[in-house]
This record gives sequence, C-alpha cells and structure tokens, in this order.
Amino acid sequence: MKLCEIINVGTELLLGEILNRDAQILCDRLAGLGISVRRALTVGDNPGRLREDFLLALGRSDIVILTGGLGPTADDLTKETVAEALGLPLVEDAAQMAKIEAFFRRRGIPPGESNRKQALVPAGCTVLYNENGTAPGCFIRHGEKAVALLPGPPRELSPMLENSLLPLLAPFGSGVIVSHYVRTVRLGESRMAEMAAPLLDMENPTVAPYAKEGEAYLRVSAHGETREAAEALCAPVIKKLREILGDWVYAVDKDLAQTVLDLLAEQGKTLALAESCTGGGIAARLTDIPGASKAFTCAFVTYSNEAKISMLGVSRDTLAKRGAVSAETAREMALGARERSGADIAVSVTGIAGPGAEGTDKPAGLIYLAATDGARIIGEKMETGRADRGYNRVAAAKTALALVRDLLSQPRKLTVNPK
Amino acid sequence: MKLCEIINVGTELLLGEILNRDAQILCDRLAGLGISVRRALTVGDNPGRLREDFLLALGRSDIVILTGGLGPTADDLTKETVAEALGLPLVEDAAQMAKIEAFFRRRGIPPGESNRKQALVPAGCTVLYNENGTAPGCFIRHGEKAVALLPGPPRELSPMLENSLLPLLAPFGSGVIVSHYVRTVRLGESRMAEMAAPLLDMENPTVAPYAKEGEAYLRVSAHGETREAAEALCAPVIKKLREILGDWVYAVDKDLAQTVLDLLAEQGKTLALAESCTGGGIAARLTDIPGASKAFTCAFVTYSNEAKISMLGVSRDTLAKRGAVSAETAREMALGARERSGADIAVSVTGIAGPGAEGTDKPAGLIYLAATDGARIIGEKMETGRADRGYNRVAAAKTALALVRDLLSQPRKLTVNPK
Repeated sequence: MKLCEIINVGTELLLGEILNRDAQILCDRLAGLGISVRRALTVGDNPGRLREDFLLALGRSDIVILTGGLGPTADDLTKETVAEALGLPLVEDAAQMAKIEAFFRRRGIPPGESNRKQALVPAGCTVLYNENGTAPGCFIRHGEKAVALLPGPPRELSPMLENSLLPLLAPFGSGVIVSHYVRTVRLGESRMAEMAAPLLDMENPTVAPYAKEGEAYLRVSAHGETREAAEALCAPVIKKLREILGDWVYAVDKDLAQTVLDLLAEQGKTLALAESCTGGGIAARLTDIPGASKAFTCAFVTYSNEAKISMLGVSRDTLAKRGAVSAETAREMALGARERSGADIAVSVTGIAGPGAEGTDKPAGLIYLAATDGARIIGEKMETGRADRGYNRVAAAKTALALVRDLLSQPRKLTVNPK
Repeated sequence: MKLCEIINVGTELLLGEILNRDAQILCDRLAGLGISVRRALTVGDNPGRLREDFLLALGRSDIVILTGGLGPTADDLTKETVAEALGLPLVEDAAQMAKIEAFFRRRGIPPGESNRKQALVPAGCTVLYNENGTAPGCFIRHGEKAVALLPGPPRELSPMLENSLLPLLAPFGSGVIVSHYVRTVRLGESRMAEMAAPLLDMENPTVAPYAKEGEAYLRVSAHGETREAAEALCAPVIKKLREILGDWVYAVDKDLAQTVLDLLAEQGKTLALAESCTGGGIAARLTDIPGASKAFTCAFVTYSNEAKISMLGVSRDTLAKRGAVSAETAREMALGARERSGADIAVSVTGIAGPGAEGTDKPAGLIYLAATDGARIIGEKMETGRADRGYNRVAAAKTALALVRDLLSQPRKLTVNPK
C-alpha cells in the first residue's frame, strides 16, 4: 500500500483561528483510493521549517500533499519552498496567466505583480486549475514519488481534489476501500454496540460503532481489489446488521433529514413543523437539502407563548395549567400546525434547551414532541439530563424527524390516539 | 517564547472519519498563554511511529501535548508509549482507581482488567482527573521540559485543559497574547483590507483581514507582558479601525446574531422573522444563543407559496405577477410577519438558494430582503453570483440581521418609505 503524508500550511491554523477541515477531507478521499495516510502535519508560514518537514515526509513516503500558502500575498510561500526543495524552477503557465488576465479584464483593472505571481508553477508539473478561486494547484512527479499542492480553503480544495487530483493519484492506490454507515436513531451507542457485538471483531470488513449528535451508527468498511469486490464484502454484513438492529436502523448512508424527505416524496406527502426549543433548527436542517421544497411546506417557529397561541392556536388554558413545556402543549402545537398549514403531517417540539431552566422549574433537557398525520397522533418525552443547549437542540430535532419517520414507515403499528 | 508541539493520536483521524477539533482548541488556548505551537501532527495508533514522532518533537520543543489513545481498549497505547520513551514505569493511582471502582459499583458490576488499566499513570506525573469520562490525563515534568497527555473527545479534553492543564502550563507562557475581532458586514474582504491598509503592516499588534460566511473581519492581536499591557496595545488600533471603517463595523468580538439580540434587548424591542430561502436558518442562529427568547418571538418559515399566502398574507396577485423571489414579495412578507406576530420589528428573506434555479428563470444567489419597524420599511437585493446553497443561505441570513441592525441603530438616517 502506498504511503502518503499531508502537510497543511498556515500560521492561522497553529494560532487556532481556523479549524483544519482539509486534513479530514484528504484523509477520507485517500482512504477511499486505498492510499494510507501515515501522518498529517500542520506547520506555519515559515519556509525553513516547511522545507525541513517537506523533505522528511518525501524521504519516508510515496506521496506528499501540501495545502495552503498558494495565495498572492507575501506570506504565501508553499509553492516557492517546494519547488526550491525539489530543484525545480518556477515557470509561467500560459493558460493560468490567461485566466488571471481575463479575471481582471472583467473587473476593469490590470493585474498587480502579486496576481501575476499566481501564474507561476514548478516546471514540468501538471497544473490543477481552480474553478473556485485564483490560486492553481499542481501535481509533480518526482521519480517514483508524487507531490501535490492544493489551495487551503475547503471550497477550493474539495472540487480540485475530486476532479483533478484523485484521478492522477488513482494509479498509486492499492485496491479500494469502501465504507457504509448503518444509521440508527433513539437506540444509543452502547446498546447498539452490545447488539452488534458478534460483528465488531471482524477483519474485512471492519465494523465500528460511533455516536454523534443524538444518533448512533456503525461503520462497515471493506478493502477489496475492486469497488465491486469491496462492496460484495460489505453487503452481507450490512444485511446481518439490519437483521440484528431491525427497525432501529433508519437508513444505510443517508442521513435522517434526507431519509424523511425521501419518504415524504415517495408517498406524495407534505410536512409542516411547529418548533419551540429547536428554534428553526429542524427547518434549517431540512432546507439545507436541495429539493426540500417538494415535501417541506412551512414551519411555525413559536418561541414565545403568544406566538404559540396566535400562530398555532394553542389554548391559553393549556399554557397556564400545563406550561409551554408539556405533552399537552406539544400535542396542540402539532394539531395546530397541521390544520393551519394544510400539510399531511405535522410534528412539534417544545422543551428546555438549556443551559438554564429559562424561568421554569423544569430541568434543561426535558423535551416534549408530538406528531400527527390526521388519523393518528403520537408523542414522545425526552429527558437528556444534560444542560448542553447545542446537544439538546440537535437531539430534539433528530427525535422529531424520527417521529415523522414512524408515521411514514409504520402505517399500522403505532398506537392510534386521534383527538 | 516557549515552543510547543501537538500530537493527536488516532487512526480514525487519518481515515478521515473524525474531524480533528482538538488541535484547534489547544492552539487557541496556548496562543492565549503566549506559548507558540510550531507543529501539530496527527498520527495513527501505531506505537513505533508514535514513539519516533514523540521523541523528535521532545528533542526540538519545550512542551509536547498528546491527545487521544488513553481509552481502555487494546489500540489505546499513548500512555504506554510515552512512559516507555521517557523511561517511566506505570504505577497505579489510588484516587483514579477509587473513581473507577465507584463508577462500576454504581453499575453493579466489577471493573474488568481493561478498566483497571485506566488507573495506571507514569510514575511521578500530576494526574489530571477526568470529570467527563473514564480516562485520566497527565502532566509530566521532564527536566526543563513538559509533556502532557489528554483524552481525545473534545468534551473531555476542553474542561481538563481549561481547569487542570493550563494552570500547570502558565509558567511556560511568555506574557499574554490578546486578540480582538473588528467585525463588519456587507463590506467584503478586499474593500475592507484596502481601507485598513495603513494598519496591516504593524508588528505588535498585528492586524490581519479574514472573511467567513458573508462577513469580513480584522483580527487585532497583541503580545504583552500582562493582559493589561496587551489590551493597551490593541485599544488604540481598534479605535483607529472603527474610525476608518465607520458604520461598516457592527461590533468588536461579538457576532452579528448576538449584536442584534443585544440591541433589541437594550431598546426593549421584539423581532419576528419571515424566512423563505433561509428556511429557518436565521431563527436557528438566533435561538442558538441562550436568552434569545427575551427579544425573539417567532419565525414564519414559509417555504411554499401557499404558506406565504396563508401564514403571512402575501397576495396571490403579487406571487403571480412578480414571483416568490421579488422585492414586492419580500416587502409583503415583512409587513405580514410584523402585523401577525405583534413584534416591533420584522425582517423577511426570499431568494434562490441554489444550486439550481428551483423551477424559475432566476439565477441562484438572487435574494430579496425587507425589514420594517412599522414606521419605515427598508429593502435589499443581493446577487451573490454563486450556486453554493450553503453560502447563499448564510449570506442571506447575515444580511437579514444587518437590516435589523440598520433599523435599530440608525433611527433617522434610513430612507423612510412606509406603506
């Protein structure tokens, strides 16, 4: 298996000003090619140390990928440092210069010297043109080894990696690693891991449990000569996990919001939301997905009691007697949202997000939800026991989507409890 | 200035399964102590390579901080590897063993051998007890140098760093680095940098331009013997930047959502939202902040045309003649939201988030906004020219908040245009 090292260049990374997303993006995609990343190093904008670390990495690995430091300003020195270390002169790339000139022509000003510098590339390299920024990347063959330079911003790096660099690196790959995610909701990581225990000690594919944002999932990862071979190793294990975990599994790979949108679209149904403590978070999660408008119609984000009354028709009496955070209020919110929106299904959330008790005597993490499709209404109470506002809001959003999935996927099994 | 290297241990990081947040957390907090992080390295669960990289780091730096690999399972080897490399035996820590036994007593089962392993620490170290997990960290003096081990999960690492490790590292700090962020909205990074150009070449404090999610900001960072000295260096530069950038600056340090919530609270006013293409994203951003309920009352997330009509009273005629993405629709959404919510101020957004044109002949990135306080109504049109759904949604949310700030901070200057 070919070995790779990653070097992310940028003083802002070492000052903690920016989260390093590039390393994860690269590691993930290289693993998919069957290239093993041995080290991922972050260094500052210091040519001396960069040169030293680059040569060390090149000496012990087959591939070195550097990110960042390709911009036009004085502290952007990755290209210069690497070219010098490899003994390559920098030469002007005509196509890149034409792109720069066209860019400035549109703006009606001539390019400055620092902009022209961006057309210089190490002699003999393959230029990776940048469709989302002004700095080109490059791919350099160095004997049997390879060196690649990519821009730092993830939205420039990702498409360049996908479209230009990965095809060039494919010959370095050894077979293919394929990963799938068997995703559950409500189950919890430890219980999921106990249920899946007989499969957690395999070698190929490997099965590993993870938990994130109120969900638990199992990664099934196989290595094969071809994609087909790796997929063939995964398939029976995924099938077995589905059998073991049953209805806890809501999807393989697809996330919960997409799963719910797809179920709605398949059944030609629409969804409305009534959100209190999640404060628009469920709507934002659904509408992050292109095409959400096919099934998602509207959300009533009723943060105040008055809004619950006027926008959803929750009764003043219920709020006074039971409180805004109660099963009754959740129920009236869901019924009101469905009726007023005309949607087929409505789901509601009301709770104490935390960190404090928000003027009530109820604990942070106490959350009530309800969902209705007109014929049925189902409810759920959560007690996370946590004061973590971010966690509680995400966990509540996930449970709300799980309730919608229940209505859509279990046409008969639910307790029917119409008003 | 003392030099530090960070080593994050975990094969899951090199497979791209987990985003490395630990490095940023550590870099940020160490910079605040005046400790310079020179390298941040990620390596896998391989004792041989870890030993090699650890000794290299220890040889050239004053402090080495390792994270991860402290768990109970067989591939958790950081503690063993570091202790061996430093020639320290592992000894049982009585207090940690008592914690482990208490933990298992509560669960009614005896601890296994792998759990008992977690009470072993390098001889002579300071144990950093873990309030959020089972793996303790440790701090080791090695001559003039220091080595620290922290658990990998950020929610265990962060409190241990803050409460236990930073006080132990303080003697290694050289003075204090203080950073402030002068934040602007609508201005754009290049224009902001041009305006601030005379201040961008200073040594202490340094002033550096950044752009993120539709905002541009300047980081002012000073190094001083004490916090007060560093603050005294920052203050006149921040004042000067405020003068140069004028009303483009909405706050120093505080983000836009918090700025708007604070302005609303100061003036005793409430806010309602009418969101289409942002799909609940503005509400979610505001309600992420504890105490948002003081000023934020509700959001009408009207994704479909029918919802715009029924929830906000947008006229069918306007939607037919001008379209959902138009200045007129934005205006009617804002007026409807204010009237129906009873809030003092309402702001609306309608646009094409992308990546596609969503069945219209309008381009992705075309967004209309309106805000009203009853006496006045102001509007804004954005054309980002980008098909990036995530960017367009965030940029629209920022502009919406900027419009609310306009109404709150400029009682007279605005074009008054009541309906």
